[in-house]
Amino acid sequence: MKTLGTLGERETIRIIERIIKSDAAVGPGDDCAAIDIGDMYLLVTTDMMVTKAHIPKGMGPYDIGWSIVAVNLSDIAAMGGKPLGVVTAIGITRGHPIDFIEQMADGMNDCARRFDTSVVGGDTKEHEDLVLSGTAFGIVPKNAILLRKGAHAGDLIAVSGQLGKAGSGFYSLKRALGLKEAEDALKRPWPRVKEGMLLSKSGIVTSCMDISDGLSASIFELSRMSGMTYEVDYARIPKAKEVEMAFHDLERQKDLVLNFGDDFELLFTIKRQAEDDLLKLSKDSGCPFTVIGKVTSGEENILIDGGKREKLENLGYEHFRTRQQ
Amino acid sequence: MKTLGTLGERETIRIIERIIKSDAAVGPGDDCAAIDIGDMYLLVTTDMMVTKAHIPKGMGPYDIGWSIVAVNLSDIAAMGGKPLGVVTAIGITRGHPIDFIEQMADGMNDCARRFDTSVVGGDTKEHEDLVLSGTAFGIVPKNAILLRKGAHAGDLIAVSGQLGKAGSGFYSLKRALGLKEAEDALKRPWPRVKEGMLLSKSGIVTSCMDISDGLSASIFELSRMSGMTYEVDYARIPKAKEVEMAFHDLERQKDLVLNFGDDFELLFTIKRQAEDDLLKLSKDSGCPFTVIGKVTSGEENILIDGGKREKLENLGYEHFRTRQQ
Repeated sequence: MKTLGTLGERETIRIIERIIKSDAAVGPGDDCAAIDIGDMYLLVTTDMMVTKAHIPKGMGPYDIGWSIVAVNLSDIAAMGGKPLGVVTAIGITRGHPIDFIEQMADGMNDCARRFDTSVVGGDTKEHEDLVLSGTAFGIVPKNAILLRKGAHAGDLIAVSGQLGKAGSGFYSLKRALGLKEAEDALKRPWPRVKEGMLLSKSGIVTSCMDISDGLSASIFELSRMSGMTYEVDYARIPKAKEVEMAFHDLERQKDLVLNFGDDFELLFTIKRQAEDDLLKLSKDSGCPFTVIGKVTSGEENILIDGGKREKLENLGYEHFRTRQQ
Repeated sequence: MKTLGTLGERETIRIIERIIKSDAAVGPGDDCAAIDIGDMYLLVTTDMMVTKAHIPKGMGPYDIGWSIVAVNLSDIAAMGGKPLGVVTAIGITRGHPIDFIEQMADGMNDCARRFDTSVVGGDTKEHEDLVLSGTAFGIVPKNAILLRKGAHAGDLIAVSGQLGKAGSGFYSLKRALGLKEAEDALKRPWPRVKEGMLLSKSGIVTSCMDISDGLSASIFELSRMSGMTYEVDYARIPKAKEVEMAFHDLERQKDLVLNFGDDFELLFTIKRQAEDDLLKLSKDSGCPFTVIGKVTSGEENILIDGGKREKLENLGYEHFRTRQQ
């Protein structure tokens, strides 16, 4: 008998997507579903966190509450949306102290507030293990929505922020390296809500997604959606300073930067002549955007490293989770 | 150390509500949160189902999929909303057969389709036990929203459909009574989407909620929200024909009708002079609506049974779940 264990999460999601017929204008398959409500799209996204796979040991209840809101807001950000609210559903054991749920609620509330929105409702059920799901919704003008598809050959690839930070935090927690800032980045993800809205308004962006599953997996996803290939210059990727503190070995560093994920930065493409506009946007707004490569119409996705062109491998979230077991 | 086990689900939800500050125009505390988006409110609701507490043994994967969509649509219906879509998050074990998730997806899709909406997205994670959460959203014109508060003394109390059907189905499954229609009602709840929209447009409704937690608990909830008291005439409650097949004992029948829940009917109040309008609405549309009592400004909620007035007791969902253990 074939079970889900033989498929993995992504293939399971594909099976569901083949059965369920969505009426939405966009999705499933993008960061959010987009529903036509007149001049605007209503954006909706849902994400589930289960204790075992998604909650590193160093995370307290406040961090867990923060995260379930943050990861959903990140999907709204990836489509250029303005958040309208979040709802959360919590399965929790009878044995959890009241203090735990209070701190978790504090984390949810603070994260939503920090990004100018609020938790507007929820549900709580008794369960044998802690499990949380969140749903965020927002709006975006129809002509400003950012999708995963849309890039053309010659477009430039860019990212927000620095990569490898959350991954460094993960190893810092695991091996007590004391990289506090990186640990905080892992425990309390920072969705790029302001940045997503700015990119949406700029008119220079041709496609966008968040890179919670890692840079390589996200590049392959954009490639699948646009039908284009992508060339990334490793030297140009902005790397968190903690990466070289987490690993001396250069190959491990590279793996962290390319494949770990959990950074919740935006990966996007811009029109080929728009690099100066992007850098100006970055300078004026204080949002960190960096060009890291270009879109091509080649045979495969390429990583340029030390002048050498190599095939980029698709080793994202699932690869890392397997390695850690 | 105080734990959640000492509080129960409702008190746990109250603790969270005290911490989280919502910006929504309505909620938490109503069937949905309502968010101001111009002429309309955006309605959002989320519900979680965990295997142990919410999934009776006779339910197959198709029923489970149907239910997670149905229970959320019922909350949209209770506010008079037109559904715009549903998202679902699923935690499922590696050991579940692929066939199981296919049937579950079929159930979700069919339920959404049956009520003129669709599942627009979701998330799937590996988990040790089956857990599902759904979020439904919809819209309602601002001046037509149905809330739990709003009833005045003299208003009439009414319900849709027949009560005790799902409860009869529960006992039929448990004791192999073969009450197929009642079992189906339990396994595949029927949200009153059309009825909710009709009531919302009618202009005669002063408050509304769904009675998934049982009639008595819902009466107490309306009473808490409106500050009024409620008098229900037991003889006027439309009872499912299966109730007397499930129990010979009249007191057990009464308990089933008043307290079991899971019927997903609408409980609402109408203006005192609107009974004829309601009956006409019911006749013209084929929606079954029945007046069962009236709103008062008394001391307590009352049940009139066989000419006798007794205090209505608040014995809903949690009461039943405790009895079954």
